[in-house]
Amino acid sequence: MSSAKSISLLWGAGSPPCWRVMITLQEKKLQGYKHKLLSFEKGEHKSQEVLKINPRGQLPAFKHGDNIVNESTAACLYLEDQFKSQGNKLLPDSPAEQALMYQCMMEGLTLADKLNAVIYYDWIVPEEERHESAVKRNKEALAAELKLWEGYLHNVAAGSYLAGAFSLADVVVFPNIAFAFRFGLSAGCYPKLAKYYSLLKDRPSIKTSWPPHWQASPQGYDILKDL
Amino acid sequence: MSSAKSISLLWGAGSPPCWRVMITLQEKKLQGYKHKLLSFEKGEHKSQEVLKINPRGQLPAFKHGDNIVNESTAACLYLEDQFKSQGNKLLPDSPAEQALMYQCMMEGLTLADKLNAVIYYDWIVPEEERHESAVKRNKEALAAELKLWEGYLHNVAAGSYLAGAFSLADVVVFPNIAFAFRFGLSAGCYPKLAKYYSLLKDRPSIKTSWPPHWQASPQGYDILKDL
Repeated sequence: MSSAKSISLLWGAGSPPCWRVMITLQEKKLQGYKHKLLSFEKGEHKSQEVLKINPRGQLPAFKHGDNIVNESTAACLYLEDQFKSQGNKLLPDSPAEQALMYQCMMEGLTLADKLNAVIYYDWIVPEEERHESAVKRNKEALAAELKLWEGYLHNVAAGSYLAGAFSLADVVVFPNIAFAFRFGLSAGCYPKLAKYYSLLKDRPSIKTSWPPHWQASPQGYDILKDL
Repeated sequence: MSSAKSISLLWGAGSPPCWRVMITLQEKKLQGYKHKLLSFEKGEHKSQEVLKINPRGQLPAFKHGDNIVNESTAACLYLEDQFKSQGNKLLPDSPAEQALMYQCMMEGLTLADKLNAVIYYDWIVPEEERHESAVKRNKEALAAELKLWEGYLHNVAAGSYLAGAFSLADVVVFPNIAFAFRFGLSAGCYPKLAKYYSLLKDRPSIKTSWPPHWQASPQGYDILKDL
């Protein structure tokens, strides 16, 4: 089962969870895996093809041989464990960096939740339950969250990643940061995040897996412009 | 840094995230670590003592030497990595069980989110933003989630845990299940979850770390009674 041929991935473009798995596959030199791009707009993530791998009807739907791992962070941890000595090592050796890596990786999920609460508010909350006060509170919570990450990235100007060398923390967090800038986050207000974004966007594993429709239409949105 | 003496934990009673870390410390034979019980009611999780370790003002606040790991799942992964050959192994060897372990561990966080959305609705949502329709939808989402877990536990009658032997998946998920029953979940409607609960509740690492106020007043709540 050590070959990329036994790996298959159903994915959706621009989904940070899918992107995490794709970056990890590139970093672990598992190019050549089977994959299929599905459309969220057409509801293909709720198709039988997905549901038989991922009963939640979500993407990614990921298989390695008979082993199914759909939660993106779980899939990244699993791939690092299964292919320890292949490609780039994504788990630091030193206890201090390992502590930081696990911590940032899991905090990255909180960042994702807070981004989604703002960006997808109208999609998540039915019209008759929407409140300006909730929108405002969600935005404030996201701004506070992003300021925490500005602090975490105090060493980014020296070329440092979240936990020293590039690691699973960056794999999990970077797609959220890219997502924030795609949705209009101001580089001026969040200079460390902007520096981190520009440091990582041309990394081969990330560039290769860049969301195709972001490439096709580089112009994003402005939902987060005033954050 | 290999001794329990270099570990300190600030915790709150009945918090599933804190409980996960305490179970892991027991499983890894790290008894004798420094710990301090703080009161959520008195707001002690927002005290300077916590904030200097966990800037989010949340519990657990966990340190091993100078390494800080506050996200509970991160702390469990870190402890398993740092103390691989000490106490019980919590990461399976076989790729199939490892896949299942990582998957269940991360899905456990979704279960926790859905439990919290129901149990803490009035605490999370300001009075003027509450809607009966949201309460109903949250309950339906939780019931659907719990039914998924009923399915995952189809082998529990044979004494099987979430991913074969007891693992980090159980460490992360069990406190949520115990929490659900504490808040009134019906054992009759969720027989596999009830079986799992009774299989695990007397495991030494779990029994020793049982929330003290649950022991003092075994009577719980009935919020989830009709789920």
